[in-house]
Amino acid sequence: MSKKFVIVGLGLIGGSMAMALKGFEDFTIVGVDVSQPTLRYAREHGICDSVTENAGEAVEGADVVMLACHPQGILDFLEEHKNRFKPGCLVTDVCGVKAAILEGAKCLPEGVDFIGCHPMAGTEFSGIQNAFPEMFRDSHLILTPREESTPDHIALLERLAVHAGFRDVIQTTPEQHDAILAYTSQMMHVIALSVCDDPNLFVCKGFEGSSFRGCTRVAALDVGLWTQLFSLNAPALTACLDTFIAHLQDYRAVIASGDREKLREKLTFSSDRKRQMNLPGPDLLN
Amino acid sequence: MSKKFVIVGLGLIGGSMAMALKGFEDFTIVGVDVSQPTLRYAREHGICDSVTENAGEAVEGADVVMLACHPQGILDFLEEHKNRFKPGCLVTDVCGVKAAILEGAKCLPEGVDFIGCHPMAGTEFSGIQNAFPEMFRDSHLILTPREESTPDHIALLERLAVHAGFRDVIQTTPEQHDAILAYTSQMMHVIALSVCDDPNLFVCKGFEGSSFRGCTRVAALDVGLWTQLFSLNAPALTACLDTFIAHLQDYRAVIASGDREKLREKLTFSSDRKRQMNLPGPDLLN
Repeated sequence: MSKKFVIVGLGLIGGSMAMALKGFEDFTIVGVDVSQPTLRYAREHGICDSVTENAGEAVEGADVVMLACHPQGILDFLEEHKNRFKPGCLVTDVCGVKAAILEGAKCLPEGVDFIGCHPMAGTEFSGIQNAFPEMFRDSHLILTPREESTPDHIALLERLAVHAGFRDVIQTTPEQHDAILAYTSQMMHVIALSVCDDPNLFVCKGFEGSSFRGCTRVAALDVGLWTQLFSLNAPALTACLDTFIAHLQDYRAVIASGDREKLREKLTFSSDRKRQMNLPGPDLLN
Repeated sequence: MSKKFVIVGLGLIGGSMAMALKGFEDFTIVGVDVSQPTLRYAREHGICDSVTENAGEAVEGADVVMLACHPQGILDFLEEHKNRFKPGCLVTDVCGVKAAILEGAKCLPEGVDFIGCHPMAGTEFSGIQNAFPEMFRDSHLILTPREESTPDHIALLERLAVHAGFRDVIQTTPEQHDAILAYTSQMMHVIALSVCDDPNLFVCKGFEGSSFRGCTRVAALDVGLWTQLFSLNAPALTACLDTFIAHLQDYRAVIASGDREKLREKLTFSSDRKRQMNLPGPDLLN
């Protein structure tokens, strides 16, 4: 008998995950969404084996439930459905903050496992119509298991990663995940947004080179999602921003001083760091 | 009899320009460089019709001289060779600051035209071995003519733009150019460098998503070139940085406040601006 893999939320990531998991072992993929157009799209395009708007029914008897909603939606879902998961069920998620989600998952009854999950992939678009099965190819899948998470469940997510085409699976703590993501992801979005706040933005239309497009691409973001990601990771994100602003101010001071030798030294220092980052072989957290 | 088009400096841009100008009207392309390996590479790969290390000789009798050196090199070259250009010669350049270059070009004798030129193209690499003829495809070519520049010379550069595959030609003043480029280009580089100054950079290796790579790609820059670009455009660049830092601090304050409604409003404002920038049709300066 096939096992039941429920994906709650068929947006960009949930939809892509459903597509990427087609044929994964003996799982039947059940998609859940509150939006009728999304369900219709999923049905018409064969995104899942079946779809439903009834989350409660879908969750019952499920072997794996992957919550692919916005962070607050995940927290609300856990609270609302905590008593519907069957014992031994693995609940996981796909969102970009982990400490707040793991905290929320403490409401689950004993015997229901939760492993935080963050597929490091995405685009600046949203919605199932932008989903595609290669979304995760060569990306990292970050896992933040609980202490009591079972090796079987971790192994299941590792096989899932292989099937969906992830480059690797990295285990870390929710706190480390959040500190790193504040820097590598959330701050990049704050930078892109702040650049676009410049009053001369539209005067410059047509003069954007690849550096401008590269820096600001992600500013066209999903407002609801990123409001939650920034809010739920505020301490780590503001700490990163403080460090970044201090480094910007150092550059500003040296540029204003007219001291070309000092400026050259600073450029050498920073560009060498970037070149070192570009070298092959990731220095991953253990 | 063919006309003589001299390109001084066969680096990434000068080399690509030479390749892109192959077969341009009845011009013979003469490449000048001080580096023997560069000249040998250009000769072996047929980058120009001829190459020489003797700038003085090359410039004499030239119809067009394009200075594709670093900004300070352009200023020094103009000063050193100002009396070698023949009357009616068009001198131009390709660098990313314009007011300082136009100021330096005032040393040229009457009858020698100078039109500032900025092909808005490039990569994070440098040197002739990274040059390619499609470098300028779909890019903007910005021209900053002098008041006394002749229509014939402007028309010549417009035909050059077509031949090299540029998307369009935009005329503006050196001051407007520099203000816009401080924002769209130089500040993007200061941002990328400052992000890489974060002490946790290497801890995060392997966790970079596309937003991080997009923002920091240009940090692996040519130190000598960008030291000069930042220095020669310091007032405009520091003004942009002040505006950017103020907008970052606004975001920081709202994120720290925990006021999700205010944060959502800010994200809506900034992301709408980015989406408006993404609409087709450039709002170019007149």
